[in-house]
Amino acid sequence: MNKIDWSSQEQAIAHQAIQNAYARETHALIQLINQQASQIHDIGEVWRLHDYLSARRHQIDGKYDERPATLLFVFADLIKEGWLNLEDLQGLDPDKLAKIFSLAKM
Amino acid sequence: MNKIDWSSQEQAIAHQAIQNAYARETHALIQLINQQASQIHDIGEVWRLHDYLSARRHQIDGKYDERPATLLFVFADLIKEGWLNLEDLQGLDPDKLAKIFSLAKM
Repeated sequence: MNKIDWSSQEQAIAHQAIQNAYARETHALIQLINQQASQIHDIGEVWRLHDYLSARRHQIDGKYDERPATLLFVFADLIKEGWLNLEDLQGLDPDKLAKIFSLAKM
Repeated sequence: MNKIDWSSQEQAIAHQAIQNAYARETHALIQLINQQASQIHDIGEVWRLHDYLSARRHQIDGKYDERPATLLFVFADLIKEGWLNLEDLQGLDPDKLAKIFSLAKM
């Protein structure tokens, strides 16, 4: 998997796909914070929000990794989580797409 | 300072004062979260909220310490920060009150 080459065109598609997924995931998180924070009425809920943000931040910081060696796995995770779809990856060679969708089913 | 005795009546006053200050500080934090979180529009603001909650949680967790040895300092800090006032401490002996308000001015 680590030996897969990415043409400059594919790299551009991959970069845009990562940007799309990041924008969707962070937008959903912002909406969740907007909604949930207005309903907080006790300090325990504040600390639960803090715990939740700690976990999401750690996860988001680690996930959007554009290094070619890990890109297929990153895309597979993003598809599984619903932040990326086939349209975002149009233009990648079919072999890569097959690998990504196969990994996403695991 | 560590040798100061607290009567059982003073301990009850101290306990209630701590409860009052904790309720005020956490209530103010909840209100702040309710207000500010609804105005979050980008992911950088989400992470700034997370950083802010990390700092406040650490500070609040460490501050409300009812051990007699540190109580005068705890009260002085809470007065300085505006979470406690003279009325909350009515019934403590005047010497303790003098020490607390003297520390609060430092």
